[in-house]
Amino acid sequence: MKKTKRVGAIIKILTEAPNKSFSLRYFCDTFGAAKSSVSEDIASAKELCEEMMLGRIETAPGVGGGVRFVPYISDEDTVKLQEELIEKMSDPGRMLGGGFLYTSDIMFDSQLVRRVATVFARKFQESGADFVVTIETKGIPVAVMTAYLLNLPLVVVRREAKVSEGSTVSINYFSGTNDRIQKMSIAKRALKNGSKAIVIDDFMRGGGSIKGIYEILGEFDVEVVGTGIIMTSKTPEKKRISDYVTILHLEEVDEEERKITVLPNCQIF
Amino acid sequence: MKKTKRVGAIIKILTEAPNKSFSLRYFCDTFGAAKSSVSEDIASAKELCEEMMLGRIETAPGVGGGVRFVPYISDEDTVKLQEELIEKMSDPGRMLGGGFLYTSDIMFDSQLVRRVATVFARKFQESGADFVVTIETKGIPVAVMTAYLLNLPLVVVRREAKVSEGSTVSINYFSGTNDRIQKMSIAKRALKNGSKAIVIDDFMRGGGSIKGIYEILGEFDVEVVGTGIIMTSKTPEKKRISDYVTILHLEEVDEEERKITVLPNCQIF
Repeated sequence: MKKTKRVGAIIKILTEAPNKSFSLRYFCDTFGAAKSSVSEDIASAKELCEEMMLGRIETAPGVGGGVRFVPYISDEDTVKLQEELIEKMSDPGRMLGGGFLYTSDIMFDSQLVRRVATVFARKFQESGADFVVTIETKGIPVAVMTAYLLNLPLVVVRREAKVSEGSTVSINYFSGTNDRIQKMSIAKRALKNGSKAIVIDDFMRGGGSIKGIYEILGEFDVEVVGTGIIMTSKTPEKKRISDYVTILHLEEVDEEERKITVLPNCQIF
Repeated sequence: MKKTKRVGAIIKILTEAPNKSFSLRYFCDTFGAAKSSVSEDIASAKELCEEMMLGRIETAPGVGGGVRFVPYISDEDTVKLQEELIEKMSDPGRMLGGGFLYTSDIMFDSQLVRRVATVFARKFQESGADFVVTIETKGIPVAVMTAYLLNLPLVVVRREAKVSEGSTVSINYFSGTNDRIQKMSIAKRALKNGSKAIVIDDFMRGGGSIKGIYEILGEFDVEVVGTGIIMTSKTPEKKRISDYVTILHLEEVDEEERKITVLPNCQIF
């Protein structure tokens, strides 16, 4: 196998599985090449990736070490993404009455939410999380993409306990949006006691369901090390949770004037 | 901007948004470069991508033309993926009783389902589909990834009509798994009449819910141009749908012998 091809194959293997660590031995075995030449190839891949602004290839030395690709989004691209999201979100055609907005087309736009996920991945890269968690349904795509970029398992909290989940833990929580008590449940085998979680969701109004996720995770002594939300409503001002990263602020939905005001979170960096 | 960097930037832009078509003008504007040099850069990117086995860069000539990246998985890598999935699926610890298996860890493993999605994307690349559709919840990750690779919108059929979906169309269908009538609903504004769909799901037993999706799509005169399922149960032999691509066959769950038998679909190519 020629050197150029080996370097290319290394880039492909690493970038398709972000944050997954590969040993030097893995590449030696894959290419049937000596350690010394694979080391050189990795150095070339690293340079090429930097040159290409593809992200960062990191090498950790020693027995437990390995090579991995760390995805990245620049401040400039983050601002551009916020502007695009705001343009879409502000379309008055989204108004459903009662202050509700139709956002499924945005939350299920996989290429768009992947870019949002890159912002969360950059933010939570060093959080030490063991998994990403969300509650069904609209937050799943951005949570899947965040889990993908950080190479973490995804856990989905269900609204209803399903037979295919095995034994579950359930809690009741107060949802301000629906103004009622709701239930959420999680498969016991989905979580390890004492692990660390990143919570991802599409939208937060009062924070009731995020708080519910914290509580259900508490049943497993899970520590929340980061919370990322695509859009947060300005009202109610008092949220049930305090420490979160949001991409957008929903300032106002004025149904009379047919005007939706969305602002970027400028403190995101 | 140096040529190497331009070529790198082109590869990054294209591979991060698979199947999205970019005009020559877009790159000219982005780099502040002449058409002739951008054309050369694209040709270099194309070569490099082939050399790197990253997938395929396609250029379509003319006014409506553009440049796009088409993702790919080789037959060899597909077989390797099937083997990995089978090893995971066959773990007797998955047995929940009553023939049910716990598969959430696999279906929510984003890096794994991305590889599965590449198989579906390769299969349905030329299907002419306008969108990808699934039913909540466990099929969402693989459907998100398929939609991502094909650059198509994702539509998620809900079990319950939600206020944030606006006006919906609902149907009742028979689910053999639960042995009862269930409901599914879809937001009216999610679909365009007369468009074409790819249906993606994680698991099929009798095909009741997939058939339900066909029916609800029929309300919008939507044509199904492809159906992809990760694992299909051998029993019941008679399915409610006939034309689908499955990655795996679930042959038998023997609870007495604690043995799960899963086979690859060898007709997948």
